[in-house]
Amino acid sequence: MRTQVVIIGSGPSGLLLGQLLANEGIANIILERASRDHVLGRVRAGVLEQGTLDLIDEAGAGERMHAEGLPHEGISLAFDGRLHRIDLAALTGGKRVMVYGQTEVTHDLMDKREAAGLATIYEAGNVEPHDFSGEAPYVTYEKDGVGHRIDCDFITGCDGFHGVSRKSVPSTAIRTYERAYPFGWLGILAEVPPAGHELIYANHPRGFALCSMRSTHRSRYYVQCPLDDRIEDWSDDRFWDELRRRLPAEAAAGIVTGASFEKSIAPLRSFVAEPLRFGRLFLVGDAAHIVPPTGAKGLNLAASDVRYLYWGLREFYRENSSAGIDAYSSRALSRVWKAVRFSWWMTTMLHRFPDTDDFGQRIQEAELDYLVHSQMASAALAENYVGLPY
Amino acid sequence: MRTQVVIIGSGPSGLLLGQLLANEGIANIILERASRDHVLGRVRAGVLEQGTLDLIDEAGAGERMHAEGLPHEGISLAFDGRLHRIDLAALTGGKRVMVYGQTEVTHDLMDKREAAGLATIYEAGNVEPHDFSGEAPYVTYEKDGVGHRIDCDFITGCDGFHGVSRKSVPSTAIRTYERAYPFGWLGILAEVPPAGHELIYANHPRGFALCSMRSTHRSRYYVQCPLDDRIEDWSDDRFWDELRRRLPAEAAAGIVTGASFEKSIAPLRSFVAEPLRFGRLFLVGDAAHIVPPTGAKGLNLAASDVRYLYWGLREFYRENSSAGIDAYSSRALSRVWKAVRFSWWMTTMLHRFPDTDDFGQRIQEAELDYLVHSQMASAALAENYVGLPY
Repeated sequence: MRTQVVIIGSGPSGLLLGQLLANEGIANIILERASRDHVLGRVRAGVLEQGTLDLIDEAGAGERMHAEGLPHEGISLAFDGRLHRIDLAALTGGKRVMVYGQTEVTHDLMDKREAAGLATIYEAGNVEPHDFSGEAPYVTYEKDGVGHRIDCDFITGCDGFHGVSRKSVPSTAIRTYERAYPFGWLGILAEVPPAGHELIYANHPRGFALCSMRSTHRSRYYVQCPLDDRIEDWSDDRFWDELRRRLPAEAAAGIVTGASFEKSIAPLRSFVAEPLRFGRLFLVGDAAHIVPPTGAKGLNLAASDVRYLYWGLREFYRENSSAGIDAYSSRALSRVWKAVRFSWWMTTMLHRFPDTDDFGQRIQEAELDYLVHSQMASAALAENYVGLPY
Repeated sequence: MRTQVVIIGSGPSGLLLGQLLANEGIANIILERASRDHVLGRVRAGVLEQGTLDLIDEAGAGERMHAEGLPHEGISLAFDGRLHRIDLAALTGGKRVMVYGQTEVTHDLMDKREAAGLATIYEAGNVEPHDFSGEAPYVTYEKDGVGHRIDCDFITGCDGFHGVSRKSVPSTAIRTYERAYPFGWLGILAEVPPAGHELIYANHPRGFALCSMRSTHRSRYYVQCPLDDRIEDWSDDRFWDELRRRLPAEAAAGIVTGASFEKSIAPLRSFVAEPLRFGRLFLVGDAAHIVPPTGAKGLNLAASDVRYLYWGLREFYRENSSAGIDAYSSRALSRVWKAVRFSWWMTTMLHRFPDTDDFGQRIQEAELDYLVHSQMASAALAENYVGLPY
């Protein structure tokens, strides 16, 4: 088999890149280790920057997103018993974000890909990129017990943090940066209307809490918890009680409780691997960088990588110039690090850290106080939240 | 003896408060442990916020400051081999700062006080505030071996971090917050023209450096150094070499070297004691809080305390209302914590920390990169640097 670009991973970044390339007439095949249903069963974030929306539109997969997504023009920070709204739109000259679940984005892109008759090979086992440091890379995989090989011009690793792409690079060629946070997020999904129209990020002496949503009838809530907490110890009742205790009264009053249909504890981590290009292999999104979910940057960063890589590959095939792919790593990383910084800062500002001394705690409180009372500081948060320029 | 307000400490905050009160007809006596010459020999910071200038003007001691001070409309941050100017005036609607040495401020206020015939008792030994939790406080001291007592309405502790005022408060009544930084500043004064017209704050792999000045012919330079460095090991030549290595070429080229006439190593510390009021004793400035010099907030915070306390005491005597002095501690501390946060943040962003991991180092670089390229983030720095509103 031969194609122009092999895309490893059928998450939103792989699908988005594949669609954009296909629209340009650039042939690509997606190899996905899991089944289609498994991919669609993953629960992930759902706050999209304008730039992400634009790219999904450019791919031609934005129709349902615009019909069903919830545009948000603000968020609230909650601390000291009060809600403080950050008016994203007013502070950024009208920019806003869209709440639309990552699962839905994936679904729309899969539908689009299938309608276009583009190849995705699910349940591809033992996927392995080869010879990407030379001119003739190829990828091998197994399907139903039979080995296959795809020759290609480029391999793109859109296969997430645990994927094979980054692991295929010699460790001497890659440098990694990492920060683990000393807490996790206990999250639930419930078929209840959300507490309010916008997201609420709460810093409370008992820990962080987040009121989010997937739609007008599906809520997503989180509370900070110790990393060694066991999910069995968190009944729905205990979760709802804890959530309400961490919110100002006006927000807690809006909580509609109900049975959760998903409940999990996730660790928080910052991770960056550099560079993003190794000859004819490119790393994209979670395959190269992870941010804690505070600030909602994970999917948006993946989309921003896709944008730069798409530009680069398009330039390569259209104009026979490697300028864009040569610049991919540094361009993408410049934006990645800004978002890594923002996510780290939001995480640091909004969580209670077990080892913080009294001075550190007061600095955190002073920062929140300054932030919500300074238009400049609020605007700096807002421009990051809606997405920095490309 | 009897007066209305006893002021302990003849630094700029005590002198400023005394002058403002005297202008309102409120009698006060300043008690100073050191000699007049000793007080004037102290080398301190010299970047004044507009609000500090205004207060010095209100005290009637601003004439020489306006004639000789250097108005600055910007600062530069230096990193990655380049200077990045922060246009304070453009970012804050025209606000600026004034470079005018603290020693000069002290001098002007002393002259004013002496001309007005107001009492300052220098070399007052064993100063002790008494009975400030009741209605009839008094202060005792010794002068030339003779004990004295001044009865008063109020005692104000303007006697710095090591002064007696804070130490007179029962430790159970006071709460302190502290952060020590793992480095010091090696600073020199030299009779040479400064490297440029404005201050340069440099973050370099070898450590922080600051190009400052007292006047057009007197320069003040600093380099970050280990806390256990010995001043004897730093010849002038070694200092100039080290300073130049930490600056971008364009800034290093502007350095004019010369013999230093002051050279010292100072530790950096953040410290806040709460509250600022204990009955009829008030703590002001360094007596209650210390900030690292990065950000130039120490003297300005002392002036901001003076402003709030002056307002409160004026209201007390004019209107027989204790509302202002009752609010003093919380009003002053709200602004103090914002400046403590800013100074901590500037210090954290601009220094190299010996224990920082690779991730932390990259976050620092990403923060600087974001800061100088975002108008919002630059404006947030600028509004803090020129001084937040009262």
